[in-house]
Amino acid sequence: VIVMPQDAPPSKIAATRSYGAELVLYDRYTEDREALAQRLARERGMTLIPPYDHPHVMAGQGTAALELIEEVGPLDALLVCTGGGGLLSGCATAAHHMAPACRVIAAGNDVKLSFARGEIVHIDVPQTIADGAQTQHPGKLTFPVIQSLVAEIVTVSDDALVRALRFFAARMKLVVEPTGALAAAAAFERVTDLRGGRVGVIVSGGNVDLARYAALLAD
Amino acid sequence: VIVMPQDAPPSKIAATRSYGAELVLYDRYTEDREALAQRLARERGMTLIPPYDHPHVMAGQGTAALELIEEVGPLDALLVCTGGGGLLSGCATAAHHMAPACRVIAAGNDVKLSFARGEIVHIDVPQTIADGAQTQHPGKLTFPVIQSLVAEIVTVSDDALVRALRFFAARMKLVVEPTGALAAAAAFERVTDLRGGRVGVIVSGGNVDLARYAALLAD
Repeated sequence: VIVMPQDAPPSKIAATRSYGAELVLYDRYTEDREALAQRLARERGMTLIPPYDHPHVMAGQGTAALELIEEVGPLDALLVCTGGGGLLSGCATAAHHMAPACRVIAAGNDVKLSFARGEIVHIDVPQTIADGAQTQHPGKLTFPVIQSLVAEIVTVSDDALVRALRFFAARMKLVVEPTGALAAAAAFERVTDLRGGRVGVIVSGGNVDLARYAALLAD
Repeated sequence: VIVMPQDAPPSKIAATRSYGAELVLYDRYTEDREALAQRLARERGMTLIPPYDHPHVMAGQGTAALELIEEVGPLDALLVCTGGGGLLSGCATAAHHMAPACRVIAAGNDVKLSFARGEIVHIDVPQTIADGAQTQHPGKLTFPVIQSLVAEIVTVSDDALVRALRFFAARMKLVVEPTGALAAAAAFERVTDLRGGRVGVIVSGGNVDLARYAALLAD
């Protein structure tokens, strides 16, 4: 059983169903996903697997950075896209151990304010085409890791995301969803100074509705 | 210096220029590319490198099948897209040596009639969205190899190509140009019987103008 926002990309909803999942849809602007999922798990006697705030999920997503650094060697900087911080905290942990001098830079919305204030801040649902980063706060487990291992959090505009999507399609022949292009867009837009360094960029996710994707490419 | 049809995808023209090439554009419906290129090479004292009808080009393109079979082991069938037959003759040669029982099946336009007649036939420029397969005849060197090593030549409709493009974008996150999807489209449309076999498919090329690609995804 998968709990998913009702405005998730139709292709993501259809693909999830076609892989055999039962979907429970909710309104991300008015309903509390965690409360809904907890109630469902309790009622049906199921185990709750959160999308990011769980040590195994964080560790598993961190294998992206682990495999990258294993393959290319130490990096001076690693850019990671972030929503709730699962991928980010996992990648930061891996980078910290394998390349201690590597600056981990995150691109995303909700974590930025919490990071600046030094405590978890709940924000309104961010208005961005990066639907995977429309989280309202970092996780209880992800945030302390982010606080101690991440150097900087940046945000990028929707226009910058679209430019990054087009780059991936035109030159790398890859379909990337807006959320998955956050870190790359930050690098392309030079929102942080990366000159002279060996820079890794995590590109993650291609769950974008084809009609929507076509509109973003064509605009 | 690269001789290219003036109606090649704008993205292909722009990318070729940005890599430092001088482009000479011609009208594929009224001009003879080979004569034009031979004249240019003679006038400027350059070596002519044909797009497909050369033993090194055929051998180089054949490494696609070589690497595929090295990686996955013998196949019962191998589907290859074809225009002038460089990729096809090279892949057929590799498959013949590495997996002698493998049936090589090609998807394309101009080779089909020549293959049926047993001699090189010049056809009008095929009207298809697969611009890389708008060749008018197989090569003098590629055709004998195709005749002796290819089992079957099939064609697919533009609609089938568009469906294949959408599959690659939605499920494999790959931007594929129509020509590059010919072989996959033939498999998806079951234009030949592949049941029960281990089937390899060569997917080749992502040179498609983004606006055009977006229109094909969205239609």
